Amino acid sequence: MANYDNIIVSTRVRLARNLKDIPFPSMLKGSPKSSEKVINSVIAVCDKLFEYNVYKMNSISEIDRVALQEMHFISPNLAANTENGVVCISKDKKMSIMINEEDHIRAQCVIHGFALEECYKNVNSFDDKLSEMVQVAYDEKLGYLTACPTNLGTGMRASVMMFLPALSQSGKLSKVITMVQQMGLTVRGMYGEGSSAAGYLYQISNQISIGVSEIDLLKTVANAVKMICESEELERDKLHKIQGIALDDKVSRSLGILLYAKRLNSSEFMEHMANVKLGTSLGILKLSMPMLNYLTEFCQPASLCNYSGGGKLSAKERDEARAELVRSKILER
Amino acid sequence: MANYDNIIVSTRVRLARNLKDIPFPSMLKGSPKSSEKVINSVIAVCDKLFEYNVYKMNSISEIDRVALQEMHFISPNLAANTENGVVCISKDKKMSIMINEEDHIRAQCVIHGFALEECYKNVNSFDDKLSEMVQVAYDEKLGYLTACPTNLGTGMRASVMMFLPALSQSGKLSKVITMVQQMGLTVRGMYGEGSSAAGYLYQISNQISIGVSEIDLLKTVANAVKMICESEELERDKLHKIQGIALDDKVSRSLGILLYAKRLNSSEFMEHMANVKLGTSLGILKLSMPMLNYLTEFCQPASLCNYSGGGKLSAKERDEARAELVRSKILER
Repeated sequence: MANYDNIIVSTRVRLARNLKDIPFPSMLKGSPKSSEKVINSVIAVCDKLFEYNVYKMNSISEIDRVALQEMHFISPNLAANTENGVVCISKDKKMSIMINEEDHIRAQCVIHGFALEECYKNVNSFDDKLSEMVQVAYDEKLGYLTACPTNLGTGMRASVMMFLPALSQSGKLSKVITMVQQMGLTVRGMYGEGSSAAGYLYQISNQISIGVSEIDLLKTVANAVKMICESEELERDKLHKIQGIALDDKVSRSLGILLYAKRLNSSEFMEHMANVKLGTSLGILKLSMPMLNYLTEFCQPASLCNYSGGGKLSAKERDEARAELVRSKILER
Repeated sequence: MANYDNIIVSTRVRLARNLKDIPFPSMLKGSPKSSEKVINSVIAVCDKLFEYNVYKMNSISEIDRVALQEMHFISPNLAANTENGVVCISKDKKMSIMINEEDHIRAQCVIHGFALEECYKNVNSFDDKLSEMVQVAYDEKLGYLTACPTNLGTGMRASVMMFLPALSQSGKLSKVITMVQQMGLTVRGMYGEGSSAAGYLYQISNQISIGVSEIDLLKTVANAVKMICESEELERDKLHKIQGIALDDKVSRSLGILLYAKRLNSSEFMEHMANVKLGTSLGILKLSMPMLNYLTEFCQPASLCNYSGGGKLSAKERDEARAELVRSKILER
């Protein structure tokens, strides 16, 4: 596939797995022994595969839980499970294994850019080692058993996060979404739907995981992503041709604001950041796209608090810390 | 007087004079001989005093006429007199002698910063040489005779252009204006009244010129200016204390826009420039106030056209040229 670094932010593949003969996590409340067994089994698997850090939801601060969530290492669901929720995050930050989420195990790999194959390879290695070391809940007919039937079968969800400003602005995104849905996939806005403040970030993922092989699922997602990238590129060229200097002016001013503001609230940040990314992807601005993507994640409230020393910051203090972080990171180039 | 460079933009003193036995300019239309006589007499005086350039309104382009007006070398009145209007501008650009304006002669000296004494000295030298070389219309009782009775007497107007953002924003300007009026002076907005887009520029000048000596007039203007400067400084300190980081944010963002915009219309430019000047005067920004004042004058439409090679520019082209000029001048520091 062509290089779509200016469109594809990151790739994520996750597997849902459960241990045989242990009730699903929703039934494990008040059963510390069973949930401990799940935790220990998974940690033993991780031990064989990579270096990692373990975070127990009941022994880290609320800010840390929200920050892990903002960085997509854990789900809101796991963050809320302060009884027995645990996550193992590999030191290279690609793998995160959530324990006692909706299922006993949610193993995910997240990699910047387009990396369906590498993500799949990594979660697959985990899955192989897991099956080797413990008995996994599996049914010949249904495949892997999961708490929610939508995850039955492969238990796999493959998703790609995409930056789609031109399709959004041209109004053609809804047509693309319809096409993608016909392929059995879903499109979700990452930070709210559709608005510019949402940063034009969308996640494309498979909706069903039963009745198809993992490889076929990955192929379908890859095809949809390729089609969306081509449409987005076309629309970006059109946008630049139609808007000309008006677009240059808009993206350049947004960079000016990001560099010179002394305080930036979250939605204003997202709006200007989306413009700056669009400008960068069109070559109007010479900035690093991965750095901008990093900033987008890192400027969320809890991550910002952690960046500024870990204390809880007021909204006003966060806006000041955000402006400072943005300025220093962009000027680092 | 204390250094009020952050408040006082420039000082101007002008004398209105007429030659004896020649009708006032409004009566000279269609009398090329008489108006030529005025022109030649004045040029002969200039010859004795300084190096200069002569611009005849009927032989320069409209853009040049407007540009001279924007730079305050000539009045709209002179620019409109394409029959026999002429201006001599000294090469150091301090002195400009308008010929066949409302009066035969309007001799003015403009100097950056507070310079009432120097301006007066310069126009006075011109006046002395003029009286030596030609017969000036003078009446023992009324003083110098002028076309409009408001200029009778000394024929002098002394004015100081001031940058008053804090008094404007705090709403205390109207009180100051009342006080200044009680001293027999007037306050006029330079680019429209009161609004932020007007750049917070105000001109303080004497209203009457009869019944008082030139020296007393200068003293009155100087006293008013000093009083206004003290009030403005007080209000700036208050503004900074009250608004704190909100003010830092505002002035810094305005600098960001001036540096990063690819096109800037006139009113937006004035608005951000006023913020940047305020920030500079409070020490929030480290920029040169004279450079900013220069830019404010130079970014007007006709001056911009001249800067960009002299051709007539469309409004859109001017906005682009303005953005480019502003960026390059600020980055020169």
